[in-house]
Amino acid sequence: MLPDFQTLDQFRALLAGAPGPDTAALAQARARNGQLTKPPGALGRLEELAIWYAGWRADPRPSIAAPQSIVFAGNHGVVAQGISAFPSEVTVQMVANFRVGGAAINQLAGAAGAQMQIIELDLDRPTADFTQGPAMTEAETVAALRAGWQAVDPQADLLVVGEMGIGNTTAAAALSLALYGGDAGDWTGRGTGLDDAGLANKTEVVARAVALHAPTITDGLDALARLGGREIAAMAGAMAAARQLRIPVILDGFICCAAGACLASTQPGALDHAVAGHCGAEPGHAGLLARLGKEPLLTLGLRLGEGTGAALAIPLLKGAVACLSGMATFAEAGVSGG
Amino acid sequence: MLPDFQTLDQFRALLAGAPGPDTAALAQARARNGQLTKPPGALGRLEELAIWYAGWRADPRPSIAAPQSIVFAGNHGVVAQGISAFPSEVTVQMVANFRVGGAAINQLAGAAGAQMQIIELDLDRPTADFTQGPAMTEAETVAALRAGWQAVDPQADLLVVGEMGIGNTTAAAALSLALYGGDAGDWTGRGTGLDDAGLANKTEVVARAVALHAPTITDGLDALARLGGREIAAMAGAMAAARQLRIPVILDGFICCAAGACLASTQPGALDHAVAGHCGAEPGHAGLLARLGKEPLLTLGLRLGEGTGAALAIPLLKGAVACLSGMATFAEAGVSGG
Repeated sequence: MLPDFQTLDQFRALLAGAPGPDTAALAQARARNGQLTKPPGALGRLEELAIWYAGWRADPRPSIAAPQSIVFAGNHGVVAQGISAFPSEVTVQMVANFRVGGAAINQLAGAAGAQMQIIELDLDRPTADFTQGPAMTEAETVAALRAGWQAVDPQADLLVVGEMGIGNTTAAAALSLALYGGDAGDWTGRGTGLDDAGLANKTEVVARAVALHAPTITDGLDALARLGGREIAAMAGAMAAARQLRIPVILDGFICCAAGACLASTQPGALDHAVAGHCGAEPGHAGLLARLGKEPLLTLGLRLGEGTGAALAIPLLKGAVACLSGMATFAEAGVSGG
Repeated sequence: MLPDFQTLDQFRALLAGAPGPDTAALAQARARNGQLTKPPGALGRLEELAIWYAGWRADPRPSIAAPQSIVFAGNHGVVAQGISAFPSEVTVQMVANFRVGGAAINQLAGAAGAQMQIIELDLDRPTADFTQGPAMTEAETVAALRAGWQAVDPQADLLVVGEMGIGNTTAAAALSLALYGGDAGDWTGRGTGLDDAGLANKTEVVARAVALHAPTITDGLDALARLGGREIAAMAGAMAAARQLRIPVILDGFICCAAGACLASTQPGALDHAVAGHCGAEPGHAGLLARLGKEPLLTLGLRLGEGTGAALAIPLLKGAVACLSGMATFAEAGVSGG
């Protein structure tokens, strides 16, 4: 059912041929919304969210019963540049914590009724230090994209992808700078908690890496290979597979949005099946959301990743869809003025 | 366990003697939060929310298992002034819709795992038109406060109060103007959907009512009697009872916040056990939240009332509390750098 790919060009072709929403279901959901027992527009953004969801699910009266949350973990050679407050060993330690249910995403996915998978990507084999050359070969990039692509449950009706990878806000900042320009300082933040000197060094590392690669970057997927990481590519692969399967996606934080930006920069509209779960505290996140044209559902100062901000938004989408599908119409309820 | 009252002065005394949070539980929750497997502060506002909840529940590792949602319904004599786009009959029609599960609050309370009560307050006996005199006598006000006070389930661990009452954005605007000043236009909005002429009339009605009553208003509860309504008083009574029972409250929209403002204007700190669930589209709502010192969790353009915006925020608080209580500490998980 889900096609496969072996090269970046084959993946590009899949992005280009991906399906859109079901226009009949969109129209039916919009008509139903207009008859529900409330003043027109009184549920604000919930109304558009529910209609959007109905379109992608090709169901004018849908429900959300099987959200899937996937956390991808990878390690980054760029940590050799001293860009993180935590050592690389924390990636594998946190994976163990995910597996026993001790992390934030375990609690938030559980509270939202989402199944959870953890996928480790060669944690003992970090990507190359992208200040010296490309982070990944094409084969490594394709392998990571496929790991994400194959991780999506075709029976899921909503997807959240998160990540763990010491050093990956540096990769996300470099991707953002390469794709959208500006200054390295616009995209570089304190990550897990750098001090001022650490932030200055990280910013310089990001600028240097992008100066090395930018002249030859051809599109978002090429940028992903040069400046990304395995977990970032896997997130992109999972979001692209969800599109093929018409499974709506809630975007998480800065790193998730950087993965999404690699898709959207390669194929305009590649994230039309995604909404922004939140805007976090990492400074580049708001900039990415603006470039992607996504208005966040939540702005609560999160900066953890793992999929936490997206998981926290699952109940909002569930609530929106419950209103569309469960409310009575004016006629059904015998209420005046509809 | 919950004391009773027969006069507004007895209710004032209860507000003045209400309990605060448990400082030991607050300190223990804060200490635990600092040891959880995440960078310090990485869960943003969720961390403060969970600690706040722990303090009110006197439990450093709490859970939210029994949220209660109550919808109070009342009718308003001020509809004689032509201030609503819908007729008064809609109040009782919507109560019937609540009872069969067809309204938005039914879907959102259900999705959030909240039990739901509907309490009608003399729907066939509207309050007096407050452009002519006080909306309620002291006895009527006390009766409505007590209806709310007695509706709170002592076993609940979270409370959301909502309302239905054609005309009640006019009452909320009048209360806001009387309590906080400014111009009538700052507090008056389109409610369920007034056109420009309707909005101009409603603004004039609010200004005229407040001009009549303001010179003699003594405090928030006196304003509530003169310019409020039964469902607004019942919401205030329920929120005050929750404080006595140390049940945290999520505030809903403009009308709920106007009810809360009557408490806070009478007794500073009376809403310390409450957080703002959302900021809605009715223009006075943001102004009330600012005066109450409450930062909303959600800003999604809702303007429906019923408790919908607060119910939508229940899962956010559940998620925050799940993280505090369910996450592993650095020591438990064997993660470096804690």
